[in-house]
Amino acid sequence: MKAIIENQFIEALARAFPRSEKQLNALQQSDAEILKLSENGPWLAFTMDSIAEEIESGLYADPYLAGWMTVMVNASDLAAVGADPLGLLLNETLSASTDDRFLQDLQRGLADAAIAGGLPILGGDTNTANHTELSACAVGILPENRYLSRIGCQANELLYASGRLGAGNAFAFAQLQGLAPNGEFKPQPHFKQAKIIRQFATCCMDTSDGFIATVDQLMRLNRLGFDVWQPPETLLHPMALQIAAQFGVPKSAFLAGIHGEFELIFTIPPEKKTAFLQQADQIRWQPILLGEVSAHQGLRLNMAGRTIRPDTAFIRNLFDSRRGRIEQYIQEIIEYLTNLEKGA
Amino acid sequence: MKAIIENQFIEALARAFPRSEKQLNALQQSDAEILKLSENGPWLAFTMDSIAEEIESGLYADPYLAGWMTVMVNASDLAAVGADPLGLLLNETLSASTDDRFLQDLQRGLADAAIAGGLPILGGDTNTANHTELSACAVGILPENRYLSRIGCQANELLYASGRLGAGNAFAFAQLQGLAPNGEFKPQPHFKQAKIIRQFATCCMDTSDGFIATVDQLMRLNRLGFDVWQPPETLLHPMALQIAAQFGVPKSAFLAGIHGEFELIFTIPPEKKTAFLQQADQIRWQPILLGEVSAHQGLRLNMAGRTIRPDTAFIRNLFDSRRGRIEQYIQEIIEYLTNLEKGA
Repeated sequence: MKAIIENQFIEALARAFPRSEKQLNALQQSDAEILKLSENGPWLAFTMDSIAEEIESGLYADPYLAGWMTVMVNASDLAAVGADPLGLLLNETLSASTDDRFLQDLQRGLADAAIAGGLPILGGDTNTANHTELSACAVGILPENRYLSRIGCQANELLYASGRLGAGNAFAFAQLQGLAPNGEFKPQPHFKQAKIIRQFATCCMDTSDGFIATVDQLMRLNRLGFDVWQPPETLLHPMALQIAAQFGVPKSAFLAGIHGEFELIFTIPPEKKTAFLQQADQIRWQPILLGEVSAHQGLRLNMAGRTIRPDTAFIRNLFDSRRGRIEQYIQEIIEYLTNLEKGA
Repeated sequence: MKAIIENQFIEALARAFPRSEKQLNALQQSDAEILKLSENGPWLAFTMDSIAEEIESGLYADPYLAGWMTVMVNASDLAAVGADPLGLLLNETLSASTDDRFLQDLQRGLADAAIAGGLPILGGDTNTANHTELSACAVGILPENRYLSRIGCQANELLYASGRLGAGNAFAFAQLQGLAPNGEFKPQPHFKQAKIIRQFATCCMDTSDGFIATVDQLMRLNRLGFDVWQPPETLLHPMALQIAAQFGVPKSAFLAGIHGEFELIFTIPPEKKTAFLQQADQIRWQPILLGEVSAHQGLRLNMAGRTIRPDTAFIRNLFDSRRGRIEQYIQEIIEYLTNLEKGA
């Protein structure tokens, strides 16, 4: 865990903090915090996440998207622990120069996402400052008094994603290059899928920081590897495949970039595969089979029939070590993955 | 309620938001959001608040204070509804230029306040941006399945504060004028006091936006007035009295300014006064008797033996209508109150 700059930082920040005896998960072990209120009481899930960099960098220049994402990033963490949604608290720090149109679109994005996710807005706060930042805290309930953690998968289990990957990075690439988007980036809530996943999965985590960061964290926590044998044409979202073709970006870059797609990554024991897929079919959901859990540590990807083994720690740390220089980060990650895909 | 710019704004923001059937309080009716999980389940309290303007304006230039306040502003809202603390989630958006010393002091402030308030840190998130903003969401439990709301007081009940008033505005005045502080501004948690208040009080609200904003909101919600007949020497914190004397600032300015002291304002029926004070005495707490609830709307203050009737709507709206011009706000409010105290 300590090989990753972000993990070190979070552990350092939390070192002096008092912890709760009612909390069931340890630091880093699940996407949301799990609280057992009393011996017979319900188990609750809590998560908190803010949208700041994405607004400041212009990535979420669209206020509707900024509002939508403020709700969805939190909904995604709740779904990843298998919680049903109870509600959301919201803080809106608005710039004094915010105009009515911006505010209307922002509120519409927040309200639409809250309705789509079944997350009523319980309350919150507003502030005025020289910047815009949106924070939310989501609350959920674990009806069967169990939760999905990031830990628990075993070798030979099947690795799934809730949907195709790479739309988040495709959107970010297009947005930062000033290109017209070739599709809409609008992550959806996964509470229906989570109701099924929580019955079968041995671990689960959302791809809020992109696929490679997610599997890197899961591999570290479980001391295992992942063998992704599906080809990119099956894994990747059409937006990612199109940008890869049009701009010669290596396909693995859409798995490696840090702007996630907010899908769920989870593992299913092979003997439960049929029952899992039957239930998925009943809600017309097609989970993407990615590959399997391997006893050998590290990530293997299938790129044009060749197996590549990206250094997932290097990829994760690259953004943190290039802090504030996003262009340089993109250039370096594309260069690294281009060489890796070519076998250089 | 519509006479107040902030109330209008909050109602406009919340208009399109979905609400929860499990939520017991309506908008504006309590300091924290109250959720009844199920028919026999526990009642929970949630609140969320951010520290942004206070950091940006230099008011909380001290990172220890910024951390301490991030916890305390949320602890204060939980106490105001009579909840016992369960825990806190935290988002730290840090500037890329944050140095180690700043971060250490900030974390120490957060941890000390979390320990002082009995609020374990459950989890949270970090972000990097060009600004610093701290957000927290606090969770509490209402053990007897009832809560303190802002509504419920009646004429002739007694008006109390949990402690002396004006330290928040005295600190802000000193800080903005670059004066050496004449005392420490460090609001304390009120969970012990809240355990007593919740047994006796008919309404309660914290002074997060200052005393006058608090009583203005309570008067509007209850359609009543407050007659504060205690003299300022009894009401005001020594820091406020000293600045008033030294700089000729009208004493009522320390009740009117928007930088609150995070005390609780509450009402007690006269027949419960003795039992209430007996319990307070057992924890060595001396509540400040301010005056009483009046059937006549409006606020009456006792200043040097004269009754003044400040226009509380004008005072509350002044900051919002002078947005971003803090110096002008201070000058105008001092001018208004100086004239009022002189009887001009």
